[in-house]
Amino acid sequence: MDNKPRRTVFFVSDGTGITAETLGHSLLAQFPDCSFRQVRAPFIDSLDKAIDCARSIREAMKRDGARPIVFSTLVQNDIIAALHEGDAQFIDLFGTFIAPLEVELGVKSTHAVGRFHGIAESEDYKTRIEAINFTLAHDDGITDKNLEEANVILVGVSRSGKTPTSLYLAMQYGVKAANYPLIPEDFERNKLPGELQRFRGKLFGLTINPERLSQIRQERRPNSRYAAIENCQSEIESAQRLMRREGIPFLDSTTRSIEEISAKILQEIRFGKPVY
Amino acid sequence: MDNKPRRTVFFVSDGTGITAETLGHSLLAQFPDCSFRQVRAPFIDSLDKAIDCARSIREAMKRDGARPIVFSTLVQNDIIAALHEGDAQFIDLFGTFIAPLEVELGVKSTHAVGRFHGIAESEDYKTRIEAINFTLAHDDGITDKNLEEANVILVGVSRSGKTPTSLYLAMQYGVKAANYPLIPEDFERNKLPGELQRFRGKLFGLTINPERLSQIRQERRPNSRYAAIENCQSEIESAQRLMRREGIPFLDSTTRSIEEISAKILQEIRFGKPVY
Repeated sequence: MDNKPRRTVFFVSDGTGITAETLGHSLLAQFPDCSFRQVRAPFIDSLDKAIDCARSIREAMKRDGARPIVFSTLVQNDIIAALHEGDAQFIDLFGTFIAPLEVELGVKSTHAVGRFHGIAESEDYKTRIEAINFTLAHDDGITDKNLEEANVILVGVSRSGKTPTSLYLAMQYGVKAANYPLIPEDFERNKLPGELQRFRGKLFGLTINPERLSQIRQERRPNSRYAAIENCQSEIESAQRLMRREGIPFLDSTTRSIEEISAKILQEIRFGKPVY
Repeated sequence: MDNKPRRTVFFVSDGTGITAETLGHSLLAQFPDCSFRQVRAPFIDSLDKAIDCARSIREAMKRDGARPIVFSTLVQNDIIAALHEGDAQFIDLFGTFIAPLEVELGVKSTHAVGRFHGIAESEDYKTRIEAINFTLAHDDGITDKNLEEANVILVGVSRSGKTPTSLYLAMQYGVKAANYPLIPEDFERNKLPGELQRFRGKLFGLTINPERLSQIRQERRPNSRYAAIENCQSEIESAQRLMRREGIPFLDSTTRSIEEISAKILQEIRFGKPVY
């Protein structure tokens, strides 16, 4: 790392740039010893903007003493040509794959700019927004109104990762994800909260390492019984016992990202959508 | 469309599959007249799983009467080879770009499986989770505690898109996004809510078409004054007048996705991070 120059990486798109950034991050993660400075360049949808961007690329080249890397999802040839005025390693996500896809599918692509425009009118998008609203309205067991509409109901002790996972499921996959805390009362009764009994098939549990849980709770309520390690241990043991007895599949969230947990949950639940 | 066979598309990954799916969706969106059935195959991290997946690919081929399309972010050669036992158009996102990146950077890639494992320990990830927690705690003007930590504060009339946009900014970009409703009281006083005056530079407005707003509000509270078109028109006019007078940049959310709005906001705000 020490003798390698720091590279500037550009994510260039005529839309939001999310595709370029997602693939770029995945590829760069394969080079953990390299140092990258990252620049977003979304909405490059005119020649003027492309010329500006090419200038930034040349400036980065001068400053770094090494060619920048450009991840591009641009689709218009004149804009791509203008961008090539900056010397860079040009990783052309669309250009590379669109031609073989055209051959395979036997049709020409539309070469449409920013396919994300108009996404707001699509059914998929509406599903995602509805899912976000549903998930917010059903966070932390706030209400059991319309709970039958949930695609999945996450359960687990307080601060086991239910809320961010629910939101990710809704936002990325349009999954209506409610979540319910398992609380000391439930453990004393040794039963699921009453309103969940009808939805046994939709339940999915999250558990967490007691030390980690105690640490997270300390940040919220320092030196409380709630955050004490003995209490965390006891709550987690009770929750796991309850989930096992009720036949609820569960996952340890301690070292998993919300992306990983969500992908695992999607594999487990079937909610009337084709194949997924 | 009618005489084209329906294709099955597989998103195959040794991790969550999000990268494969994101790029796949962007590429397939360039073929709006084709019909695709989409299958997620995440966590293909063993030969057994790859052999299973190749079997599904062969079955899809038989059923569709056309080769499936496989978007892959697999990195291990033996797993990739096993997958090739199914006849498909294989779009190899890593294979295509890793070799040229290795040449450019002058280092070998780690060929590490599922780089998303371990993401949960990264600083970036912690920033995102903190941002989600902050954003939830500062939704809809719930509190102005720690508001100075916000990277951006969205303002706008009720149901103009502030909450889903705030959550997307937090989840995707790790941006701490608070949001405050602009309500009739504010318009009567013709002033920003008091607690926002200190943070003028962090404010960003959302506006929306009155008909669309009325429609959204109708779904929430049918036949209410809140949802009436005249009231929506008046609130939006007042909000825009206030934002113009206070010099708050704003954007119309009517036909824009939360992805687009967020990318636009990121271009506007500067919050002490390098370059972005």
